[in-house]
Amino acid sequence: MRFFLTADFGGTQIRTAAFAEDSLTPVAHLKIPTRGDGTTIERLVSALRNVTPPQGEILALGVSAAGFTDAEQGMVYATNIHDMHKFPLRQALADALHLPVFIGNDANLAALGEWRFGAGKGCRDLLYLTVSTGIGGGVIANNQLLLGRHGLAAELGHIILVENGPLCACGRRGCLEAISSGTGIANYVREQLALGQASSLANIPQPTARDVAAAAPSGDKLAVDALTRAGTYLGLAIANYIAIFNPQIIILGGSVTNSGDFLFKPMHAAIQANILSPVYLEDLTITTAELGDNVGLLGALALAQMSL
Amino acid sequence: MRFFLTADFGGTQIRTAAFAEDSLTPVAHLKIPTRGDGTTIERLVSALRNVTPPQGEILALGVSAAGFTDAEQGMVYATNIHDMHKFPLRQALADALHLPVFIGNDANLAALGEWRFGAGKGCRDLLYLTVSTGIGGGVIANNQLLLGRHGLAAELGHIILVENGPLCACGRRGCLEAISSGTGIANYVREQLALGQASSLANIPQPTARDVAAAAPSGDKLAVDALTRAGTYLGLAIANYIAIFNPQIIILGGSVTNSGDFLFKPMHAAIQANILSPVYLEDLTITTAELGDNVGLLGALALAQMSL
Repeated sequence: MRFFLTADFGGTQIRTAAFAEDSLTPVAHLKIPTRGDGTTIERLVSALRNVTPPQGEILALGVSAAGFTDAEQGMVYATNIHDMHKFPLRQALADALHLPVFIGNDANLAALGEWRFGAGKGCRDLLYLTVSTGIGGGVIANNQLLLGRHGLAAELGHIILVENGPLCACGRRGCLEAISSGTGIANYVREQLALGQASSLANIPQPTARDVAAAAPSGDKLAVDALTRAGTYLGLAIANYIAIFNPQIIILGGSVTNSGDFLFKPMHAAIQANILSPVYLEDLTITTAELGDNVGLLGALALAQMSL
Repeated sequence: MRFFLTADFGGTQIRTAAFAEDSLTPVAHLKIPTRGDGTTIERLVSALRNVTPPQGEILALGVSAAGFTDAEQGMVYATNIHDMHKFPLRQALADALHLPVFIGNDANLAALGEWRFGAGKGCRDLLYLTVSTGIGGGVIANNQLLLGRHGLAAELGHIILVENGPLCACGRRGCLEAISSGTGIANYVREQLALGQASSLANIPQPTARDVAAAAPSGDKLAVDALTRAGTYLGLAIANYIAIFNPQIIILGGSVTNSGDFLFKPMHAAIQANILSPVYLEDLTITTAELGDNVGLLGALALAQMSL
């Protein structure tokens, strides 16, 4: 039998899996913390060896990497993994495993995974946004992943929406991510609580976006307002992206989308209010991701399959 | 001999030209006002017949159309030409001239022209912006024109930069076009004059962006401020587009770029101030368009050549 190896790593977890050539169900998979004994690359290689089938041919390795990724040069510039900043990941993995190695940014590969195996199957022009701790994006244009010169395209969380707006993890102000990500939602709620706004969230020491989502259904005004604000700016950004990409489908993933209509209703209203022309919405599908937690591994699988 | 026919039309002018198969110098060309005797389509067909070589084979017709253009369906949705709104342009031209007809949005085809024949030759990932009465855009990603589902992608003048900002020709508020286009510059100056700001422009009844550009070199503060404001927001938008497209080259065209450093200096400063990461700027070229007034016809020529 012939197999693909895949890996998906971020600041918290390393996940690896082996897939038989024509299957989406892994024959072996593993999840370990990113931090622990050894360097990150040692842990990654070990986690890959642990899922490598004892027999059969390994065709290639696909890797979904957190943060900036220069797919062409095989370099990663992770900001939240200290020994993976400006690191020649592809070369290091090829040297260790003697395989063809293909790497990509996590959000780009999530877009690729949803396009090839998930909610975006058969769509030529697709926009993917993951709204989680941060906000990442991926674009399929004319059946190709939008990479740009160095694979740094589609940083869709970092469009500046509000001049001198809230501080973003990227160091700038007013990015979509600073407002509509889980971090942005939590920061807003903490700010409002500090200003003395009444809310059931005042009882929680450091409320998170998950706490906000949990408080909204019982009608907590601050929780509902925070999600409305996040959804409204998400919709404004999406209206911009629709005029930039004219997609056929927009796929939303990430933990913040679990807030459901508290996020989506204001998002849809803002898209309608800010769209350049109703023509763009005529046959546009806006939906949620299908691949769940496996999106990184399946995106890496798609990359490996398509790159060979 | 074999020829391509080309046309470039907007609210003011219809331009047509015939090119020998391997030449960028037209063998015949014509410029007529869009408004006059007959319908726009009649005038367009007549202007094309007038440049058609009497002998030889015509391979195809390429058309650069103002406004929204559904390249796949061959429909145009011009807003400033009353009889070209929701008009089946490709079919009408094919019926009249019995040729393969390819149409595209003017800014998209300008990008294609600069990429194939002008400042962007050899660049895989290119961003083109024309800053004129309005602001249009075109993107080449991985050597392909970014069209989106219906050819409506790359409306780069209509990113919303300022919530509840100045009114745009599109009907919304705070678009890049509403601030940094010639119209945006003129509107700002008129507003400031109405508020009583002193300026040499106060002597001109309805000062235009051209008047503003003419007043800046003598140090007129309002003129300089107006161009600084336009350049700053242009740079902010470009910083966003760099993180979205990771281009290798950005090409700026359109009459407002004649303001030179009064526009470009604040633009570059704003790009530096707002860029997501300096990595994006490392080998990025930002330059001006090369094809001048012929960009529409040459873009249409590129489209016809590449579509055959």
